[in-house]
Amino acid sequence: MRIALLQINPIVCDLRKNAEKIVLAAGKAFEKGADICVTPELAIIGYPPRDLLLNPQLIDNCEEALNWVAQRTKNLGPVLTGTPFWSGHDQKVLHNGACLLKGGELTRYFGKTLLPSYDVFDEQRYFSAYEGPGYFDFQGKKIGVTICEDIWNDKDFWKKRRYGTDPVRTLADLGVDLIVNMSASPFSLGKQKTRASMLGSLARKYHISFLFCNQVGGNDDLIFAGRSMALDEEGMIIASGREFEEDVMVVDVDNPDNNQVRDHDYCPESETWNALVLGLRDYMNKSGFSRALLGLSGGIDSAMVAAVAARAVGPENVTGVLMPSPYSSLGSIEDSLELAANLGIKTLTISIDDLMQAYDQSLKPVFKGMQKDVTEENIQSRIRGNLLMAISNKLGGLVLATGNKSELAVGYCTIYGDMSGGLSPISDVPKTLVYSVARWLNRTTHPLIPVRIITKAPSAELKPDQKDQDILPDYEILDQILHLHIQCLVPEEKIIAEGFDPETVRSVASMVKSAEFKRRQSPPGLKITDLAFGTGWRMPLASRCSSFTKK
Amino acid sequence: MRIALLQINPIVCDLRKNAEKIVLAAGKAFEKGADICVTPELAIIGYPPRDLLLNPQLIDNCEEALNWVAQRTKNLGPVLTGTPFWSGHDQKVLHNGACLLKGGELTRYFGKTLLPSYDVFDEQRYFSAYEGPGYFDFQGKKIGVTICEDIWNDKDFWKKRRYGTDPVRTLADLGVDLIVNMSASPFSLGKQKTRASMLGSLARKYHISFLFCNQVGGNDDLIFAGRSMALDEEGMIIASGREFEEDVMVVDVDNPDNNQVRDHDYCPESETWNALVLGLRDYMNKSGFSRALLGLSGGIDSAMVAAVAARAVGPENVTGVLMPSPYSSLGSIEDSLELAANLGIKTLTISIDDLMQAYDQSLKPVFKGMQKDVTEENIQSRIRGNLLMAISNKLGGLVLATGNKSELAVGYCTIYGDMSGGLSPISDVPKTLVYSVARWLNRTTHPLIPVRIITKAPSAELKPDQKDQDILPDYEILDQILHLHIQCLVPEEKIIAEGFDPETVRSVASMVKSAEFKRRQSPPGLKITDLAFGTGWRMPLASRCSSFTKK
Repeated sequence: MRIALLQINPIVCDLRKNAEKIVLAAGKAFEKGADICVTPELAIIGYPPRDLLLNPQLIDNCEEALNWVAQRTKNLGPVLTGTPFWSGHDQKVLHNGACLLKGGELTRYFGKTLLPSYDVFDEQRYFSAYEGPGYFDFQGKKIGVTICEDIWNDKDFWKKRRYGTDPVRTLADLGVDLIVNMSASPFSLGKQKTRASMLGSLARKYHISFLFCNQVGGNDDLIFAGRSMALDEEGMIIASGREFEEDVMVVDVDNPDNNQVRDHDYCPESETWNALVLGLRDYMNKSGFSRALLGLSGGIDSAMVAAVAARAVGPENVTGVLMPSPYSSLGSIEDSLELAANLGIKTLTISIDDLMQAYDQSLKPVFKGMQKDVTEENIQSRIRGNLLMAISNKLGGLVLATGNKSELAVGYCTIYGDMSGGLSPISDVPKTLVYSVARWLNRTTHPLIPVRIITKAPSAELKPDQKDQDILPDYEILDQILHLHIQCLVPEEKIIAEGFDPETVRSVASMVKSAEFKRRQSPPGLKITDLAFGTGWRMPLASRCSSFTKK
Repeated sequence: MRIALLQINPIVCDLRKNAEKIVLAAGKAFEKGADICVTPELAIIGYPPRDLLLNPQLIDNCEEALNWVAQRTKNLGPVLTGTPFWSGHDQKVLHNGACLLKGGELTRYFGKTLLPSYDVFDEQRYFSAYEGPGYFDFQGKKIGVTICEDIWNDKDFWKKRRYGTDPVRTLADLGVDLIVNMSASPFSLGKQKTRASMLGSLARKYHISFLFCNQVGGNDDLIFAGRSMALDEEGMIIASGREFEEDVMVVDVDNPDNNQVRDHDYCPESETWNALVLGLRDYMNKSGFSRALLGLSGGIDSAMVAAVAARAVGPENVTGVLMPSPYSSLGSIEDSLELAANLGIKTLTISIDDLMQAYDQSLKPVFKGMQKDVTEENIQSRIRGNLLMAISNKLGGLVLATGNKSELAVGYCTIYGDMSGGLSPISDVPKTLVYSVARWLNRTTHPLIPVRIITKAPSAELKPDQKDQDILPDYEILDQILHLHIQCLVPEEKIIAEGFDPETVRSVASMVKSAEFKRRQSPPGLKITDLAFGTGWRMPLASRCSSFTKK
């Protein structure tokens, strides 16, 4: 039996386009000899549709789109397609499900049993859990249908389980021969290893083959890596699909040697790079932007964003804007120009001296007799943000913010200044990882990023001789503390107990709390870690942490 | 039996302060002869704590705070306090619950059965549903304990039910004598009438008294109106508490005549006004700001925000900044100064002419030969945003954005410009309601808002003779379309069928979709309607709506 995994890149809510993609991929698959096709989760509408799901009209439209697909594939073979659907009569409830299209008909629905409602997931906001997973008979085999989260609750694999039931166990008890898993499983660093190991463990435990079909592409903050795969009853990977691009994988379940097992690259630097390129490209394509625009400061962050953008949409579509001030070092300008030349992107240069003076003059009567402080630094940053937005307004192009995750965590960034932009591509990349991706990039390509950008001490250059480390701990230290504090929710006292300087830990925690209001207004980023600021980070603003322990 | 409803205003996560508030209120209540006290939902931590709940340490701290309260009330009487708590052994799960403090001990826990996960609510993200509601025996009566949503699922009252079970029915079957409902039920216009009518209907249906104890105060975007109340077995309101402020209500259950029934004012204008004043005051207090700052344009929106701020934190703590341009009419400046004088707030005036010219000069080489367009309008708005932020940075004070809901819906506002601020107090108030609140305010106080501000045609004054209605439909029409489109999810074709101009409807819908990226980066607002942009509005950005029906 040959099962095709249609690893497509849908556009959220573009039902016509998505239906066409499914038909096209299914056509290719059946041509390659597939007996049946499987799509990712919610493929007809794209994942995640978020609050668009609250519109009942849209759910009806999905059914119409499924009928369109069914008509166009009726002479080719069955297609199991991810879709939302209603069940119930008097009171309809919505499910995250799948429909088996066969002979031009919508023959049968399956539904998702476990609905994730953590991190970026809000599925209980939209869906009701379907009562138990189902299977269908095909060519003498029982094929169990699971949807994404349904396979992530094995009691032996996980120390902590999120749900009381396990659809895989249920299907195994029903005697299925293989299980397909239709997924839109977001990328994060290291997750693919966990997923492969979990699938292997499930296959071995139940002696059942697993076919995992994942969405690929970027949808807003979420990136889907593809990497669909098939495992035999021994848990061996017998087929694996492309990563970070679309694929039509026809898996010969009975003759593993007919399949292709691709080597995936799990080096964090290349994973990060590929994820960012895909995420940025798709955000721009799907929101209708062909050109990008960013400020080039001579620092590592803007260099990285420029490199990602040039790769994502072509250097000819990227403009780097140099906006030097009296505090910009000559080196910064030279380094930016060298970077732009290496990447082949266009540049514009606009000095901000006159604008700084104009703000000083305009504010003089109000600020009479007061010292310069962070106010004037923020003004520089906001002038630059304004200039980028003005160029975008007049000439088009998406403004990219260039801040990294470490900055965003501690608030070392200016709201309405360097935080301006339609997308903030590296806002989930810690500073130390920005550096290591830059070094990796220079090793694997001809050196794209001028070495001086990597080696010089990081500086916002908003006042004379300013360095990031005047205020912040070394990034190596900062990123470790941030990882423990944010990602792992380790209490401050325990971080200190691990050997970090107490004052540093407390000051970092306090900076993280104080920067919440900035993050609330930050542009969307691209999630590459287990916990990104953005849709999966929902903190109150006007709150104070006090307790009886600490006082 | 006398049951006290402690209608307190907690600060999210400030366990010490909240514990003190509970002890203080309980002290008053017992002094007034209460036999037992009840707090609102999650009173020890404040609602909503959002992702702070993911920190297990905090849950332990809540227990500690409860112990502190128990110690301090042990000789007074029992206190039923809202708190998160763990259940389970091998694998602990978290509940939204209540603990009965008695004799210095945490004697017994109750839990919330129905967990809302819609609109602004994310309770399934944090909590597991507790298995069924419970009751306790007190002075010969069975007192049923429900938490907020638990009472909102009656099959006779609601046309559509969200849950399969009904804790009120369960408690009635258990033969309870009265039901307390511990709530943090957010304010929205008209909701109180529904709530009172629902409680009345439940009381009559089961012949059970209900005691509803609600949180009061603003926590970020959510406002809680208080308005706690008690109903007898016939559904008559026998006691009602203060609105928009703290209260300690001692309800004599057996002798209704001993209680106070307050008249609440449900006029939409006064409700809006009171909610905004409370929301703004609490946001500022709870995030540590004593002073506020806003741009005064001479228009109705900034006038309304100034009036709210003056009432909320005192006029002496509010500064209105006039930032005229060559396009500002003389009237606008005069009107702003008159408004400021009426309110008693301070003003500053900074002309933006020179800054506009400085931007023009700096951008001239890039924009050579191009016409002026919306770019230059946005620059004016951004200059003003920058000046406000600079004043805030240097002199302190929270910047208030002044945009209304109609503007935010269609994107008639400038990101990083007039959308700048720490809070956007009227971002959930449609333009037509802004006008009617202004008229109501002038009727009920001496005229605070100069009549000309109310009567002149609305204009952003970003180019000569500009009027909002050059681009937008009349606000009366716009607000009706927006209400149908956003609040009620009515499909475009059905809105048109109601008699609205087809082109106008389609253009409004398209503007709403296009403005999503701006709303994503907008400051938090104060929710006063059933559906506010903000935490309860979760739309994708890079999405396209296509379907087979429409094409």
